[in-house]
Formats: sequence, C-alpha cells, structure tokens
Amino acid sequence: MNNTKICVLGGDQRQLYAAHEMLKNKYNAVVYGLKTDSSIQQAQSLPEAMEDAKLVILPLPFTTDNVRLFCPLCDKDILLTDIIENVQKDMIVAGGKMSDAFLLMLKQKGAFPFDYYKSERFAIHNAIPTAEGALAIAMNELKTTVNGAKCAILGYGRIGKILAKTLKKLDADVTVYARKDEVLAWAEAEGCKTYKFEDLCETVSKNSVIFNTVPALVLTREVLDNIDENAVIIDLASSPGGVDNEYAKLIGIKVIFALSLPGKVAPVTAGKIIADTVLSYYKGVAL
Amino acid sequence: MNNTKICVLGGDQRQLYAAHEMLKNKYNAVVYGLKTDSSIQQAQSLPEAMEDAKLVILPLPFTTDNVRLFCPLCDKDILLTDIIENVQKDMIVAGGKMSDAFLLMLKQKGAFPFDYYKSERFAIHNAIPTAEGALAIAMNELKTTVNGAKCAILGYGRIGKILAKTLKKLDADVTVYARKDEVLAWAEAEGCKTYKFEDLCETVSKNSVIFNTVPALVLTREVLDNIDENAVIIDLASSPGGVDNEYAKLIGIKVIFALSLPGKVAPVTAGKIIADTVLSYYKGVAL
Amino acid sequence: MNNTKICVLGGDQRQLYAAHEMLKNKYNAVVYGLKTDSSIQQAQSLPEAMEDAKLVILPLPFTTDNVRLFCPLCDKDILLTDIIENVQKDMIVAGGKMSDAFLLMLKQKGAFPFDYYKSERFAIHNAIPTAEGALAIAMNELKTTVNGAKCAILGYGRIGKILAKTLKKLDADVTVYARKDEVLAWAEAEGCKTYKFEDLCETVSKNSVIFNTVPALVLTREVLDNIDENAVIIDLASSPGGVDNEYAKLIGIKVIFALSLPGKVAPVTAGKIIADTVLSYYKGVAL
Amino acid sequence: MNNTKICVLGGDQRQLYAAHEMLKNKYNAVVYGLKTDSSIQQAQSLPEAMEDAKLVILPLPFTTDNVRLFCPLCDKDILLTDIIENVQKDMIVAGGKMSDAFLLMLKQKGAFPFDYYKSERFAIHNAIPTAEGALAIAMNELKTTVNGAKCAILGYGRIGKILAKTLKKLDADVTVYARKDEVLAWAEAEGCKTYKFEDLCETVSKNSVIFNTVPALVLTREVLDNIDENAVIIDLASSPGGVDNEYAKLIGIKVIFALSLPGKVAPVTAGKIIADTVLSYYKGVAL
Repeated sequence: MNNTKICVLGGDQRQLYAAHEMLKNKYNAVVYGLKTDSSIQQAQSLPEAMEDAKLVILPLPFTTDNVRLFCPLCDKDILLTDIIENVQKDMIVAGGKMSDAFLLMLKQKGAFPFDYYKSERFAIHNAIPTAEGALAIAMNELKTTVNGAKCAILGYGRIGKILAKTLKKLDADVTVYARKDEVLAWAEAEGCKTYKFEDLCETVSKNSVIFNTVPALVLTREVLDNIDENAVIIDLASSPGGVDNEYAKLIGIKVIFALSLPGKVAPVTAGKIIADTVLSYYKGVAL
Repeated sequence: MNNTKICVLGGDQRQLYAAHEMLKNKYNAVVYGLKTDSSIQQAQSLPEAMEDAKLVILPLPFTTDNVRLFCPLCDKDILLTDIIENVQKDMIVAGGKMSDAFLLMLKQKGAFPFDYYKSERFAIHNAIPTAEGALAIAMNELKTTVNGAKCAILGYGRIGKILAKTLKKLDADVTVYARKDEVLAWAEAEGCKTYKFEDLCETVSKNSVIFNTVPALVLTREVLDNIDENAVIIDLASSPGGVDNEYAKLIGIKVIFALSLPGKVAPVTAGKIIADTVLSYYKGVAL
Repeated sequence: MNNTKICVLGGDQRQLYAAHEMLKNKYNAVVYGLKTDSSIQQAQSLPEAMEDAKLVILPLPFTTDNVRLFCPLCDKDILLTDIIENVQKDMIVAGGKMSDAFLLMLKQKGAFPFDYYKSERFAIHNAIPTAEGALAIAMNELKTTVNGAKCAILGYGRIGKILAKTLKKLDADVTVYARKDEVLAWAEAEGCKTYKFEDLCETVSKNSVIFNTVPALVLTREVLDNIDENAVIIDLASSPGGVDNEYAKLIGIKVIFALSLPGKVAPVTAGKIIADTVLSYYKGVAL
Repeated sequence: MNNTKICVLGGDQRQLYAAHEMLKNKYNAVVYGLKTDSSIQQAQSLPEAMEDAKLVILPLPFTTDNVRLFCPLCDKDILLTDIIENVQKDMIVAGGKMSDAFLLMLKQKGAFPFDYYKSERFAIHNAIPTAEGALAIAMNELKTTVNGAKCAILGYGRIGKILAKTLKKLDADVTVYARKDEVLAWAEAEGCKTYKFEDLCETVSKNSVIFNTVPALVLTREVLDNIDENAVIIDLASSPGGVDNEYAKLIGIKVIFALSLPGKVAPVTAGKIIADTVLSYYKGVAL
C-alpha cells in the first residue's frame, strides 16, 4: 500500500469497482456515499472522506439535478456545494460530465478538475462494453443466429467501428453506412459492405437488425418505410437518438433504446475503465 | 414450385420455419398441427396433410408422452397411431429422437424413417446457435465484458469446440478441460489454454464463467468448493447435466441450465438446420 | 460495352491490371506504352491513344525523371510534353505523384487533374497488400511461426493499423508503439499491447521482428543497441526510412527495406485499387 | 538445472532448437553430431553423449539410408548399430519415423522407444507451421492479395483444418473439398464453402490457388483440365503427392511441392514441438 489517499464519492456500481481497482493498484482508497462491503474503507463523513486526498473521483454523471451528487446506492444527500467546500488546493477532482459552473468553482479553490467523460481514451475503451451490450441485445432479439445475419450499422465512429469488428468476428453480414469516402474505405478494409447515407432508403430493407450510432435523425419516415417489418432497430445514439420513434411505433417497427450500456452490462469493466483513465491522467499530472 | 409434396406436422416455431424453408426451396409444403400465417398451405386433417407426401417431417422431439405428437402450437391432439395409419409405402418420415417402437412401425408400413437428431451434420450446425445462446447468457450474467473474461469450457466436443472458437474471437481468456492429449492439442491450436480434467480442482478458481458440455458429474463438490463465489456455471449438457446442483445451491454458486438453446434463441436458424438436414438426406435417398 | 473511352498510358503491371479492370467495368479501354496481350486494344501512337478519351490514367509514379512517362514495360519514350500536347479540354487526367508543374500545365489546357496517390481511400486500400507483403517477409525471415511471435509495430497509422490487425489474427504477440494516448487506446481495443515511443529503448528487446512505419529516425543507435541480435527490422516507411542503417549494419542487425509492396507482391490487387479509386472519382465528377 | 541428462543426437536445426528447449526446461542437455554454439554442452564421442542419459532424442527422420543417423549438420558418420550398442536398459529413445527393425533392437536392449512422429499431438501442433508455410508460398505466388482470393483446400484433416482457419482469418474466400458430409459440416461451421470431391471438376475453375492435402491422386487430368491457367497448385501431401505432375507440366499448370514445411519455415518452432512432444511423453512415463 502506498500512502496516496484517493477518495471515491457517490455513484453506482461502477464507482465501487473503480474504488476496488484503486486498491488493486495499491492506493489508499476511501469511499463515501456508496454502499459497500467491508473490504474497502468507508468514511463517516464527507470532510473525513476528502481530507488529504490527492485525488477525488466523482461519478458519471456527477449530478442529475445540479444540486446533489449522483448517489443512487446510498440514502444520503451529498451537496455539490459541500464538495466544493471540502476541496483543497492542488486536489485533482475527476468526474464525468461536470458542468461549467462546477468546473469554475473547482478552479477557484485551486483544484485541478478532470472530466474523464471527455477523454478519448475513455470513450474508446468504453466502446467495447457498448458493442458487447449491443450484441447481446441483438442476440436476444433476433430469431436467427448473429452468424449469417444481415446487420446494418449507421455511423462509423468509435462505437460503429468496434461494433462492426465484433459482428464480423461472429460471421455476421455487416453493412456500414457513413458519409465520407475515406471512412467507408476503413469499413471496407475491415471486410464490411458499405454505402453512403444517401443510399440508405434504397438498400436498408435486407437487414434484420439496424444499429444506429448517429445522434441525428437518420432513420426518418422514408427510411422506416423501407425497413423489413420483422427487423429491429437498436439505437445506441445519445438522446434524442436517431429514430422517428412516433412513426416507427405507428408502423410497428421495434426500436430498442440502448443508452449507457457499459454501466448496465459490464459495471466491473466500466468501473475499471474509469479507474484506468483517471489514474493515467493522475500519473501524468503528478509527475 | 415443383410438385413434390412435403408434409410438416406439429412442433414448435422451428417446424414453422422448416416449412418456410421448404417453400423457399420450391417444394409444395403443407402443414398440420401448427398455427401459421396464410403464406403456407394448411391441411384440414391429418389424412389430407399426409396424402401423397413424399416426405413427412415430424418435430424435435417427436413426442413427449409416447402417445401424441409434440404439438405445443395447436390445440389438436395428433396421435402417433394415427400418423402410422396414414403412412404410405416408400414415404420418408423424418423426425427427432424417434423411439425404437415408432421406427419399427414405420418400417413395417414400408416407410423410410430418418432421425435427423442423430445426424452428425445436424449436430455440428446446431452447435453454432448453441454457442451463441451460451454466449448471450454469459454476457447477461457477467459483470465484466466477455472480452478479457476468464472462461472455462469443460469438454471439447462439438459444442465445446464451437463455443471456444466463438469466445476466443471476442478476446476472452479461454481454458479448455478435456481428457485426451490429442483433444487438448486441438484446443491449443485454437489458441486456448488447456488442462486435463484431473487438474480441474486445482485450476478452476480463476474463472468467472464455467461452461459445462460434459453429460456426467464433472462439477463435483470438490470442484465446486474451488470455484470463485461470484462465478457462474452455465450447464449445456443434456439432463441430468454435469453439476452437483444441490451442493451448488447450498454454497451459493449460481448454475444456469441451458438446454435446447437453438430452438429458444434462434428458432429460424434451428428450423433451417432441420430443413437442410432433412432435404440433404431426402435428395440423397431420392436419387 | 459503353462508349466511354479510357486511355491507360505507361506504367508497370499495375497499369495493365487497371486497364483490365476498366474492361470488366464495360469501359472502352485503350492502352499505350504497355506490353500487353491481345485482349486489350493497343493504340499505335500517343495521339491515337488519347484522342476522345474522357479519362486518361497515368502510372504511379507518373515519372522518374520529370521528362518521360514512367514506362518500364515498353521501349518507347513517352515525353510528358507530348502528353500535355494531346490533352484536351475537360479531359480527366489521373496519375500518381504528379508534380506541381505538370498539374499546372494540365489545368492550363482545361483538363481536370486527379492525383490518386493523394486519395485517402487509395492509401487505406493499399494498406492491405502492404500488410500482407510485410507479413510474407516476416514469415520468410522468422525462424519461428508468426503464431506466438513477439512483433513490434512502430507507428499506428494506416499501415500500422492494418498490419496489427493482420498479425493479431495469426495469433502473434503484437506491441504497438505510438505517441498519442488515444492512438494507443485504439491499439488496445484491437487487443495489442502498447507503449509510448519514449519507452522504446527499454521495452524493444523482447521482439523478434520490428515493423517500422514511421518516416523519421525512430530506430536510433540507442534503440538498436537494445534490439535482440537475432531480431529483424522490416522498414515500411518511405525513404529514407526510420533506421540508422549504418549503425545497424555495424552491429549486425538485419534491416529489410520494404517499399512499394502492393505493386510488388500483389500487382493485380494494386491495379484494381488504382482503377477503383480513379473510377470512383470519375463517376463523382462526371455526374 | 536438474540432473537429468538428455542426449540429443544428429539432425538438422530442429534438433539444435530442441536441445535449447531442454536447457530452458532446466535439463542437462548434451548434444552430439550437431554443429552448435558454445551455449550447449557438446560430447566428444557417442558413448560419452549417451552415457547415463535418461532420454535420447534422435532426429526426424532418424535415418535416410537405414545405416547412419540423419546428420546433415556434421561431417561425422553416426552408425545406427553404434547407437544400439550404447543404449542402456530403461533408456527412453525418442525418434522420428523409426524403422521396425530399429524399434525391435531398442526393445531387445531393454530401452523404451517412442516415435514422436506418430504422436497425434505432434501432428496437430506441426499443422500450424505447415499452414503458415503454405500461406507464405501462396502470398509469394499470387498476384493478388490472399484477402479476397479464391482458395480451394482438398482434404480437411489436420492440415486442411488449420490452413482453412488461417486463410479465413485473412479474409480469403475458401472452399473445402472432402468426402464425408460431417467433415464438410465442420468446414461450414468454420465459414468455408464446401463441396464433395465428386464435384471437383465442375467447381474448381474459379480458384486462384489450390492446396492439396490428400495423399492420393485427386488432381487428375480431368481436374487439371478444369483449373484456371493462372492458378497455382500447392501440394502439401506426402510423396508422391496428389497431382498428375506430368500432365500438369504438359498443360502449363504450376505445381509447388511443399513438404516438411515446419523444419524449413520455422525450425525453432519445429524444434520446440519435438521437445514438447518428447518431454510430455517422458514426464508421463517417468512418473
């Protein structure tokens, strides 16, 4: 055990596993606002938890009401203002989706805020549990095997890429839709069929499952009219997603909203990714 | 459409999709004892259904009580004796897990029985939906991603092989247990770690999920005592399976019984496999 | 056959296969400055070849002396000035690595130049034959199988990515070196080990083969001193490459320069990639 | 170092690497009839080499003339009769392709002979370097990438299976030919196209490369007449192979004989496989 104290506050199971990961890395992890077993040290109060911590880890999202910390696993209310009060100079405060106002207050106290949700590394690593979660949904929904199933992926960013690779490995028949020629060239190099988005209406009908990763209305009425009636849409794009849901409902196309999959399908892995991202930042800064 | 009549009797969704597959292959498919949509011709009676059929396809299993055909989707009772009565000379009668008594009666009527469940080809193709079903269960149970998860596979027959390959593709950390050196050599060539069964007790504890494919008591008390308390056992072996369930329950190890996965997780694919196996046999015999 | 005439001038085998690809796509392909079999129409002179062509395809590289077209397969000299003379208004002239002076002259004649070598799509597709060529070299050089071999890849751009994926598929033990955290995160998502370049000296010694894709001196004396004496370096970076060759020679480290692999190891594929890239551009412009 | 002496006699590079592997496993390895560097102990005479050895490892093949040990790396003649003379009671003598006469003499001296060449484990592990060697040949011969190339594999035993898997991973378009339905079902489960051998003539023409693994004349005149003139045949079957070579020459089809690939393309790996197989046997017997 080295003596560096790391304080993990609030959050869901991911925070718990992030704290365990800190212990595994020989840090002195202390938690508060998390129901946990006896293997991790629990502070009795927020001041005790944060005192002398070099690094404070807040959950993802750090709040849902801009007043209290996101704490679904405990019955205490932890006020954001109380956290600010206990922040000390040079403390590194890592959190997910922190507001500009909160960031400003942290800086005013001389702390170093780090929003891990904005880290590219975090996003790439999270694409793996997201892709597995999407795969599990597809397996549960499809009446065929994924092996041989015609799957469309709309968008070829982080999630699209990892999902395409995962589906190809299971011998699915994958078609990627994107806007740019060079993006499609990458999808082709991965062994996928490709189309530009403008060909979506004309070509989408063959697919049994359509994964959307684009946070814009791409599955419009015109496109929905061309989708096979037994197909399922799995929308992985952040709210409000990419589907005209009202119309999909009207014509009986099944749409599954699959948000925040890492925390739901693989909380241990998701917690480890938070811990890795934060530690990697911490080590870089602490040098 | 060619004029060869194929009669599909009873069964679950798989039979329905098998009938659709026959239509796709341009046969004159007629069903009875199956609730279906209008796209497939339904006979009004068993005699009408079987009359002049070259091939009759019975479900898997063909019966559950040795009296009536397995017909979960309809409210009629179809007696096995009525089927025998309507069998004609030279008819090919394909079914799954047909009893010796039933086979004998078929032969006495001059028919050619074919138990597709005993076909090696059928078993190999079914291993794919079985492996996907087992993967989906693991994804739902594990708190980590399958990517990187330590998975043990007990037995390396058809299901063990396909499952190992599938898990390896998703970058799981797979250990195969089997008895014979040359079987383990194959698993090593697939990139798996391997152990003999005699080393199971000593080495099993690292795994987060244990897939059993061996239809014998391999997960004994001694082995269960060595399994990680958070691990899950997925038993794919036919009844009574390979786990000392009573003891597992006692010590709180989760066991999931996963039988007949193809029909449950991928009925379309399972129906297609029945159709392919039976048609392949039919074409060979009909020459 | 549609009536659009496409003129293919000079070059090596790739140009020949590009011309065949045009024929397959039903264009009226005419070649000049290429020894070919009778299946493709050969023009008797440059003016005849270029007359009325909608699209002219020049080789990669288009010249090696800034005076004559690159024509290794024929004994004629085709002067660049003669090409300019025969260029007509609105002609699309595609070539590889065309000089600024040549581009300017084309534009002055009212033609549309297209340097396919600068196309991202071209570069991505070419990474596949490059990676296969590099793999074949490694297979020939290594005294072990690639399966299980420790391979380092320096740089994770187009070639690095495709090469890493290819080696991983063959179960090699791949370590990627790059500068940026998010680039390394992608390599990790592909299942590779990763290090920052600054750790190269300290960690390189375990590898049996080192693939360099970085066009800068990364394999310095200090690094070379840490490489295993039996290891081989395969330098895929364009001249002058990334190795201190003099020093490598001095201490007996084998370095293989592997440039322009697509044309050497897979000329049919390389020609097809030229044809696809040019046709894709042509169709976009011709609309 | 444990004190168990292992004597490695004659052979090519594989024996040398097998001896190194023994050292790595902490055995007291002594070589004779092998040119080697100073890191391994060399005996001055055969009696010195064999004296008190628990295990003697002879090369593969153990002889080429039934008189002398196969010793291509040294200029001494080691007579088989001299070996027999120095064999002691209870010595384990491992060799490759040992003759019945030699085996009998070993037994008469009270030794335990073990022909590792007959071991299933040995054969399976050797299929990996064989497949890689075949792949390297295909890469060197094909004018396209293996990615996307149409490849036929005749036979689906050990080498056929591993080769099919390897080619599929590189996204080749693989067709497997075999006799039995259930064997083809396995190839289908691996994602390959399949045909029975009786369809070879009719279907072979599309392939750019044909790998033969069947030690019987399968590539007859009739079949050769149907092969694409630019295709290449890679014959992996032991002598006399599976091709009507005279006729192939006559009609200009290129045939490459690729025997004993492991020792040629990956002698370190091949030596390690010999060492692993022999040690695994030795440990089992020595208990």
